[in-house]
Amino acid sequence: MAYYVTALEELIDKFRTLPNIGAKTAQRLAFAVLKMSNAEAEGFAAALLRAKKDIHFCPVCQNLTDKDLCSICSNPKRDRSIICVVEGPSDVLAIEKTGKFNGLYHVLHGTISPMENVGPGDIKLKELIARLSDDAVKELIIATNPTVDGDTTAMYISRILKELDIVASRLAFGIPIGGDLEYSDSPTLSQALENRRVL
Amino acid sequence: MAYYVTALEELIDKFRTLPNIGAKTAQRLAFAVLKMSNAEAEGFAAALLRAKKDIHFCPVCQNLTDKDLCSICSNPKRDRSIICVVEGPSDVLAIEKTGKFNGLYHVLHGTISPMENVGPGDIKLKELIARLSDDAVKELIIATNPTVDGDTTAMYISRILKELDIVASRLAFGIPIGGDLEYSDSPTLSQALENRRVL
Repeated sequence: MAYYVTALEELIDKFRTLPNIGAKTAQRLAFAVLKMSNAEAEGFAAALLRAKKDIHFCPVCQNLTDKDLCSICSNPKRDRSIICVVEGPSDVLAIEKTGKFNGLYHVLHGTISPMENVGPGDIKLKELIARLSDDAVKELIIATNPTVDGDTTAMYISRILKELDIVASRLAFGIPIGGDLEYSDSPTLSQALENRRVL
Repeated sequence: MAYYVTALEELIDKFRTLPNIGAKTAQRLAFAVLKMSNAEAEGFAAALLRAKKDIHFCPVCQNLTDKDLCSICSNPKRDRSIICVVEGPSDVLAIEKTGKFNGLYHVLHGTISPMENVGPGDIKLKELIARLSDDAVKELIIATNPTVDGDTTAMYISRILKELDIVASRLAFGIPIGGDLEYSDSPTLSQALENRRVL
């Protein structure tokens, strides 16, 4: 039974297709749209269409871009000898924010996940392997997440690298800065112990 | 510093204008839009514009509708002698779902809130008072939320009714069905004690 008017129910349904948006939240978001001014609502719709139309994958690093080549790949100041491999575009953002990395990226758009039937062919691994044939590449930082799937993917990539003259490294895992030993989960604490550093 | 491409940042910004959507969630939602097919994204934008264009307030009950008169006000089978006053359109939905109410509604679109500078003139109270001059109206169920502002609004309305020959009632408050005494907060428990019923 339709309790709301059709146009509103349709909008609620559209919001529900977004990840982690349930019935209640979708309803709240749809009401917020109704409270917008006409100009705001039109701006929202236009932004949606423009993002969808303008944005595509960078042919080199597979990050999102609206140009032929993304702003990092096309930057002559970036170090082309080191590639940081990440799961998604938001990981690029997180690492860029540190300001500590001046190499290039490679965005996998996922991880190998046997449980969810995602194989090496389903993520942007071919594109990574193609890049490794460039002799300029000396090191690969595998920055996948410390999860089962992230570890599987890191392992898979490091095996490919064994046959090539490229150093593989992975991000350090341990107690987060500002964290508290008491509240650290034991896998993190084990990693922190294992990877302890001499002072 | 712009880490993402402009079109993506714009879309993230638009999502951030929605209530309770922070930076991380906005980012997640924008990425979900990028993963949509073109047809899906266009459908989303169209639903947004259509909802904004078609939906307005019912001139009688102030609920949202895309018709001249909303489907409840225009239904000849509804009991015109009883009006249920609610804070928002989602409250109408919640009560309709019970199937226990066959009267009409009045949607206030807010509550009186001295703390937030919302006075009686800022919600749809004038429209409610105008409806009370109709002799058909015999009872008003004040179904505002059991919050400070909801109570203030209920009080305000009940004072207006004193001068008229209309019965005012309020929803019963108490332990929710399936709830647990042990975990009930004490204001709820106090209400439940006060409103105890003889068996």
